[in-house]
Amino acid sequence: MTIESSNPNFVRDIQESFARQGLNATLGASLTLVEPGQVHIEIDFSPHLTQQNGYLHAGVITSIADNACGYAALSLLPARSDVLAVEFKINLLAPARAPRFEARARVIRPGRTLSVVQADVYGIDQGLGEMVATMLQTVYLKRPAPNSKMT
Amino acid sequence: MTIESSNPNFVRDIQESFARQGLNATLGASLTLVEPGQVHIEIDFSPHLTQQNGYLHAGVITSIADNACGYAALSLLPARSDVLAVEFKINLLAPARAPRFEARARVIRPGRTLSVVQADVYGIDQGLGEMVATMLQTVYLKRPAPNSKMT
Amino acid sequence: MTIESSNPNFVRDIQESFARQGLNATLGASLTLVEPGQVHIEIDFSPHLTQQNGYLHAGVITSIADNACGYAALSLLPARSDVLAVEFKINLLAPARAPRFEARARVIRPGRTLSVVQADVYGIDQGLGEMVATMLQTVYLKRPAPNSKMT
Amino acid sequence: MTIESSNPNFVRDIQESFARQGLNATLGASLTLVEPGQVHIEIDFSPHLTQQNGYLHAGVITSIADNACGYAALSLLPARSDVLAVEFKINLLAPARAPRFEARARVIRPGRTLSVVQADVYGIDQGLGEMVATMLQTVYLKRPAPNSKMT
Repeated sequence: MTIESSNPNFVRDIQESFARQGLNATLGASLTLVEPGQVHIEIDFSPHLTQQNGYLHAGVITSIADNACGYAALSLLPARSDVLAVEFKINLLAPARAPRFEARARVIRPGRTLSVVQADVYGIDQGLGEMVATMLQTVYLKRPAPNSKMT
Repeated sequence: MTIESSNPNFVRDIQESFARQGLNATLGASLTLVEPGQVHIEIDFSPHLTQQNGYLHAGVITSIADNACGYAALSLLPARSDVLAVEFKINLLAPARAPRFEARARVIRPGRTLSVVQADVYGIDQGLGEMVATMLQTVYLKRPAPNSKMT
Repeated sequence: MTIESSNPNFVRDIQESFARQGLNATLGASLTLVEPGQVHIEIDFSPHLTQQNGYLHAGVITSIADNACGYAALSLLPARSDVLAVEFKINLLAPARAPRFEARARVIRPGRTLSVVQADVYGIDQGLGEMVATMLQTVYLKRPAPNSKMT
Repeated sequence: MTIESSNPNFVRDIQESFARQGLNATLGASLTLVEPGQVHIEIDFSPHLTQQNGYLHAGVITSIADNACGYAALSLLPARSDVLAVEFKINLLAPARAPRFEARARVIRPGRTLSVVQADVYGIDQGLGEMVATMLQTVYLKRPAPNSKMT
């Protein structure tokens, strides 16, 4: 399924929104792919982000998967839209032990008020490794008011 | 329902496990209640932990709720047990704007291999404020091997 | 928390909507409580509704929990509203072996477009028995158009 | 990913288990594909299975998706195993209006104690139609006792 964005500047807008998130700098997360309906986010393993056994904490895996889902939904919306996670479920599939991790989200049902987005998180070593988590998320779409001015 | 722990040192063991998590220092999270089947975790708002609109990031809310669930399950297990989140669902109920947040988890179904735990996250201002999220989690219980020695 | 309905005929409207569902007659489900923000639904065990080991099928437990959640959300809306399940998660906590079952739903976050509802399902023998499942559901609220006429 | 079953009679065993479920006859559900790690189940629309607007009830969609997930997990287990849904989340993506529906499940993470399975449900008209729901399920695997006898 090919999807087109209705915002010609969606890549720049998503990069700016991503940069406004204080958490992304704290975690060291970075956007690695932004396409219509698809977003990838990567993060390096760090001892500052671990759970009790030294693996990447589920909260960190969740953070990058959640962001990838939200921005995948945003990529299909008009300029000056925003997104809000309504809810998500995540299954942790394997211990998160790898030097780097990538969350890959894609919109599976774009909507007017809600979009449904799916994300998988992989360990990365030499190439894409084991899938460590999978998320299913409902995103609330805040479209710009009909007569809102350009800012 | 009154539940008893089968580990006389469960409070100390949970505090030690919590302290081994690199993420807790990074987020500034702290354990504020550890009882059999119930754990509370608190965190201060910080601009280092925000999403794009300046509220606490859903990934941070999830991190403290996830930890509260895991340790609530662990509080009922024998010494030298460990826990693993199998999966969870979280609903984000309101924007997370408060100076401080508390996750409150309680075991709703203790099991032999799996426990089911529920957590609510509240904003805290002067007293307990608005509920900002609710989580339902399945925890895998790693009980010590039958003939494992004390270490 | 006391909640009031904005529809003086919400009990009758919910009973009528419930009666329009072909599935309720097929399952033998009945409404046993309808209050603002709370709905209970009961069902008798039947060999026509079982899984492979003779217990009540998870799909049946889910059906009554789903309906209880939807109608709990609807109970707080104006006349001529409708509801739609966006998504739900259910944990099956124990084998469903009892002569009768009751789903008890309550709205935990009423909203303008979405409400979040929680339901527990219990076995019933002599009084309320074991909790066999717990559900967390997001409901989409279809409010009547602002200038829709009474019908 | 090609997966093999460790039970040479897995197709027959799944058919027998499916036939023991009272609910399948009540709903008119049928197995349409059983392969290692993948199961499809179909159902005809019927006015006996509807919600209040005449569409197929979410509880019915859930029932066939749940069964497809469970049997997909079972297809990979040794003879005399059984499965139990621990929990699932389902997103309802579109109104279920079609003459027939198919749930397609595939194991995304086979495990020793737990498997994680994903299912999509489609309307079927002339060929595979719109996706109406997607499910993510955790399945508990009851393997036969090590020294259990053949029966």
